Amino acid sequence: MAAKAALNGKQMRSFHTDPMTGEKTGYADLDYGAVTIEKIQAPNAPPPSSTLVFGHSFSDHMVTANWNSLTGWAPPAIHPYKPLVLDPSSVIFHYAPSLFEGMKAYKDVNGRIRLFRPDMNMARLNRSATRIALPEVNGKELTKLIAKLVSLDADFVPSEPGHSIYIRPTLIGTQAALGVHPANEAMLFVILSPVGPYFKSGFKPVALEADPNKVRAWPNGTGSYKLGLNYAPGLQPQMEAATRGYSQNLWLFGPEHLLTEVGTMNLFTAIKNDKGQTELITAPLNGLILPGVTRDSILGLARDHASGKMRIEGLPEDLIVSERELSMKEVEQAGKEGRLMEMFGSGTAVVVAPVDRIGYEGRDIHIPVGEEGVGPIAKRMLDTINDIQLGRIEHPWSVAIDELI
Amino acid sequence: MAAKAALNGKQMRSFHTDPMTGEKTGYADLDYGAVTIEKIQAPNAPPPSSTLVFGHSFSDHMVTANWNSLTGWAPPAIHPYKPLVLDPSSVIFHYAPSLFEGMKAYKDVNGRIRLFRPDMNMARLNRSATRIALPEVNGKELTKLIAKLVSLDADFVPSEPGHSIYIRPTLIGTQAALGVHPANEAMLFVILSPVGPYFKSGFKPVALEADPNKVRAWPNGTGSYKLGLNYAPGLQPQMEAATRGYSQNLWLFGPEHLLTEVGTMNLFTAIKNDKGQTELITAPLNGLILPGVTRDSILGLARDHASGKMRIEGLPEDLIVSERELSMKEVEQAGKEGRLMEMFGSGTAVVVAPVDRIGYEGRDIHIPVGEEGVGPIAKRMLDTINDIQLGRIEHPWSVAIDELI
Repeated sequence: MAAKAALNGKQMRSFHTDPMTGEKTGYADLDYGAVTIEKIQAPNAPPPSSTLVFGHSFSDHMVTANWNSLTGWAPPAIHPYKPLVLDPSSVIFHYAPSLFEGMKAYKDVNGRIRLFRPDMNMARLNRSATRIALPEVNGKELTKLIAKLVSLDADFVPSEPGHSIYIRPTLIGTQAALGVHPANEAMLFVILSPVGPYFKSGFKPVALEADPNKVRAWPNGTGSYKLGLNYAPGLQPQMEAATRGYSQNLWLFGPEHLLTEVGTMNLFTAIKNDKGQTELITAPLNGLILPGVTRDSILGLARDHASGKMRIEGLPEDLIVSERELSMKEVEQAGKEGRLMEMFGSGTAVVVAPVDRIGYEGRDIHIPVGEEGVGPIAKRMLDTINDIQLGRIEHPWSVAIDELI
Repeated sequence: MAAKAALNGKQMRSFHTDPMTGEKTGYADLDYGAVTIEKIQAPNAPPPSSTLVFGHSFSDHMVTANWNSLTGWAPPAIHPYKPLVLDPSSVIFHYAPSLFEGMKAYKDVNGRIRLFRPDMNMARLNRSATRIALPEVNGKELTKLIAKLVSLDADFVPSEPGHSIYIRPTLIGTQAALGVHPANEAMLFVILSPVGPYFKSGFKPVALEADPNKVRAWPNGTGSYKLGLNYAPGLQPQMEAATRGYSQNLWLFGPEHLLTEVGTMNLFTAIKNDKGQTELITAPLNGLILPGVTRDSILGLARDHASGKMRIEGLPEDLIVSERELSMKEVEQAGKEGRLMEMFGSGTAVVVAPVDRIGYEGRDIHIPVGEEGVGPIAKRMLDTINDIQLGRIEHPWSVAIDELI
């Protein structure tokens, strides 16, 4: 019982605020400078790139950092990849206080390793943390820890085209006590998984089931936060859709059947208007939508193209970029009139995933994908983002890790 | 990497269905008869009952059972309470595949240990499992495992009035792989926590904040399942309510501000109608409401009283029992006209929790609680449920564990 009592702790959720000055005392921030590094004794050979399955193999090391509400963040550690050891009463097993980020690092054309927009992930991580009463994390320090970890496991970063190492920062509540209260203990960890291209041999467009009775998010809910708890409820709807031949759910919302997201991705739709202009549409950040880094990047590139700031060859010259509501009625109508040009999901793992079919109210809506299995906008976006990630285009979004540490 | 590869597994989510007969082959059910028991070497002294804090101390043993999609349930084990050891890529840390139940065991007036309606918990556990693609559990076998565990740790079951041992069956997805897929590995565990009465020295009514912008559940969501993921999103709203002097959230739904639940409890409201009859109202099981065992028990007792099947002294003779929608407008109106008689939350941990105040749209609605701090219906329900739990009233809801194993 002694060990359990120690795990339980008796701390209050308090930041030791000095009553005179209002300053937080004794509360430590996450500090890259305090990191301890324990290297693996017998390094493993990285798995052959041809065998990689997303998220199934991991590099030799990981980051962990522990937090408690009394003293803040303990010094972080980089150490060999190993299991977590947690009391069975730990809140993570009972009340789902967990959030994560998905990032990638790439070997560029010169062999330098680069991150893509890590500041976006750090900002989102902290929004997520606040939503479920977990502690905030100093994003700059965590980015340095990630850079150091990736540099230590550089051999695990594949250099083949389309390959990368997937980075999974995760924050969980760990307090060992069964009451439903904000956790007074938490653990941050980061693991790395070498990954191949999502589409190994050409694009395979996905078919979506759009069932208005399957709901991903709700106003004032948690759909706009990257929390673990948004994911488990989607498993059963996906299994059901699969029995009818659809690989992902198109999540609709409200009586107008607004398109929100697809599976675990943001969604883009290209529709030609009556003036013959192409409008690229994605749902607005209205609280129902995950603010995806790839979503934001595609919007940014599309707007820079449309404004002439950075033209992308092959995109419609008069592209209109819209964050707005889009209903199934409008999609169906555009389909009937031959104006539905393209649809694709976006996310860190896949970058873009072309859609060729939507099952809706007992019928199928077909979307052109051309001979390549991908529409022109998705393809240009993928190529441009890849070029930035690999340093073929100089761009502030791409950050070399050796400049961080 | 070898250990990690083994954890990851290569199994498909398949039940080895024989293609000729359709029978599941090689797939094992949870089997109490196969349990292995390892007793603690140096038993701990149970904590003094006066020191008990809900969910902070645990008994000497626990149940665990592992499942995988290829072979089903491995033989369960009862062994000393100890930490769980899980790969950091385990889905439980990333996508919230977790569910739990809350049950209690009591020492009755003759020293026999009794469970309360375990069949209800087992049925709900399996509904929850299906909702997040976790395996179903044979409820009868799990009930026997729980009975055996409690009998082994009988010294930890306090015998003082109002005390009990809280039982926490938990089921988590454990597969070590980062893709968002149904887990092909899972773990069931049961831990026990001796607990004292929720109200140690008389009732302390709770004040609720009713903010229509805080949402617990929505149609086709997960609000009617006992999943871990329903709990973390309530932490931040509760912290906010606390800054304004309210201890729990009254969760409203929809434009009519319907009353749904309170904190992590079901909700009952007693209103006098224009004929002078008392109506006891709780929200219907419309998909937004957790089907609480205490809720069901209160409804059952109230209906048996109203029908004359089992009268409860002190309850209004002409009690009307309603599972129906109730709006804040109706509650406010009843309050103004002096017809709002009583309000209380219900749940396994507290049994009943009287409410004396609701903060709503900038004003407070007051609810009578009398000198005792609890209304007559809540008090009679608590006493009757306690009498059944302690075997003072013979009732089929109360099950002695020695009859189960």
